[in-house]
Amino acid sequence: MPLDKGLLRQAVERMRSAQRILVVCHIRPDGDAIGSLLGLGLALRSAGKQVEMVCEDGVPSDCRQLEGSSDVRRQAQGDFDLICVVDASDLTRTGSVLQDRGPVGINMDHHPTNVNFADINLVDVQAVATAEIIAGLLAQWGQEITPAVAAALLTGLVTDTIGFRTSNVNPSTLRLAASLMERGANLPMLYRRTLVDRSFEAVRLWGAGLSRLERDGRLLWTTLTLDDRKAVQYPGRDDADLINLLSAVDSADISMIFVEQPNGRVKISWRAQPGFDVSTIAASLGGGGHAAAAGAEIQGSLPEVQAAILGLTRPLLNGGQRV
Amino acid sequence: MPLDKGLLRQAVERMRSAQRILVVCHIRPDGDAIGSLLGLGLALRSAGKQVEMVCEDGVPSDCRQLEGSSDVRRQAQGDFDLICVVDASDLTRTGSVLQDRGPVGINMDHHPTNVNFADINLVDVQAVATAEIIAGLLAQWGQEITPAVAAALLTGLVTDTIGFRTSNVNPSTLRLAASLMERGANLPMLYRRTLVDRSFEAVRLWGAGLSRLERDGRLLWTTLTLDDRKAVQYPGRDDADLINLLSAVDSADISMIFVEQPNGRVKISWRAQPGFDVSTIAASLGGGGHAAAAGAEIQGSLPEVQAAILGLTRPLLNGGQRV
Repeated sequence: MPLDKGLLRQAVERMRSAQRILVVCHIRPDGDAIGSLLGLGLALRSAGKQVEMVCEDGVPSDCRQLEGSSDVRRQAQGDFDLICVVDASDLTRTGSVLQDRGPVGINMDHHPTNVNFADINLVDVQAVATAEIIAGLLAQWGQEITPAVAAALLTGLVTDTIGFRTSNVNPSTLRLAASLMERGANLPMLYRRTLVDRSFEAVRLWGAGLSRLERDGRLLWTTLTLDDRKAVQYPGRDDADLINLLSAVDSADISMIFVEQPNGRVKISWRAQPGFDVSTIAASLGGGGHAAAAGAEIQGSLPEVQAAILGLTRPLLNGGQRV
Repeated sequence: MPLDKGLLRQAVERMRSAQRILVVCHIRPDGDAIGSLLGLGLALRSAGKQVEMVCEDGVPSDCRQLEGSSDVRRQAQGDFDLICVVDASDLTRTGSVLQDRGPVGINMDHHPTNVNFADINLVDVQAVATAEIIAGLLAQWGQEITPAVAAALLTGLVTDTIGFRTSNVNPSTLRLAASLMERGANLPMLYRRTLVDRSFEAVRLWGAGLSRLERDGRLLWTTLTLDDRKAVQYPGRDDADLINLLSAVDSADISMIFVEQPNGRVKISWRAQPGFDVSTIAASLGGGGHAAAAGAEIQGSLPEVQAAILGLTRPLLNGGQRV
């Protein structure tokens, strides 16, 4: 169900009557968090507002080509007469940015887990990205979409749909993308920067993981060790997105990666095809996620953790817990 | 420049007045070849024509979910009063299907190398896919787009733009995709089948290639041996599309794969960033392609060929032949 027009009008009214506005997105930001932050923030500036855009973790490198990204701060300074939060399902997701600040005026999000923490909650779980909600708000307001705002919003749309491939993509998604291109967003460039480009070190790390790939029935997994990371000089503690390649293997229903961490811990990521739910295992280990994508981090050596998790995950495939 | 309306009307007139129509696409078909073949073929059937759809190499597995794909034959039988060729720049690309047949009535293609081999040549190099040209023709005709035709045409659009990412994607591409979804094409499903799904054997082959990845300045390359293929039981003689991952490495301007073939031959694929032209090297070795993507196959051992090709390719990066 699209957002109620009355609610959108209320939000526009709050923005119109405010002068100093703080816009905040979630920690560990993805393309939709940054795209929504910049899209709303720059549009409010065009409307003559004083705007501070804040993300506690800063802007990731694949979004730094976006205009306004160098204006994003890690903490808020000064007083504001309106606080807007974008793409965050609850306030813990904004880090410590909003500590000792007044109530949030407007909450714009598309996550089904959103807890409606603001005065005005523009939460639309059918929107493919928070950027889509912001585009709808600006249309309702009648604000002109500048090329910088268009690029920011299209970044949100492209990244949250992984290049228009997720199952919630619909004709309006594509038409909104078309209209943002017409307003000056360079789709091929921002698509490439956020979804296609890989580092040399990341693909070498993939090589290490893929050469150890294992399969048992429709269960697929691999490991990444601390030695792998050192050998290929990969700077992160993550899997360089390898899990998403594993989830594309057509003969697997559940795929997993075990990533060795310092201090004797192992990070586990699961991906599952429709019909399977890996979130309960992750949650039982103190992690979280959705049915189709979940993660956890636990104490233990790589072989120990792998054996234990395979033991926990295998029964899912045997129909026992098929949802 | 979009196609001349008069030319489109002529093509529609030829189709309207024909009764038995042969539609042919190129050998080693990709998604746009099959999507265009089925899109045009099924639409002509809906218009009451007797239609034979032919591809000498059959339909690749990632397109077999498309309605009508089991009706595609490898050779044409009988007589026809109109021959249409889709997505082929010249007649050699259709294999032996058209040997001893009369002239081609209509040629529909978007390749800049098309040699206008038919009576009526609907060649539009600005179309992102031949499927786009066929959609335009059906609109001009006023033919209803059935769900099966929509799915076929959207397959062409999605595959030739690699998921809407190529630099020629424009707002009309996205709007056409939106309208094909509204006519019944399941974008997420066909996107996944043609662009996302990978086989277990293919990703293991990637593992072999990526663990041997080498770099010299902005030149990146790897090899795939016959032993690799055997070890991972990969059935093809190709690189399982690994070259496209290499071309996404942001620190490389030119990437290459050397794939060992039976009988002492080696297949080479090049990918280049804008500003570099690898097609001349490929052509000088009897291969072909574009500035950004080219290939060749030559005699020699893997180490010999690799050394020779590195010697030929390196100067491109030193500005000598930068275009």
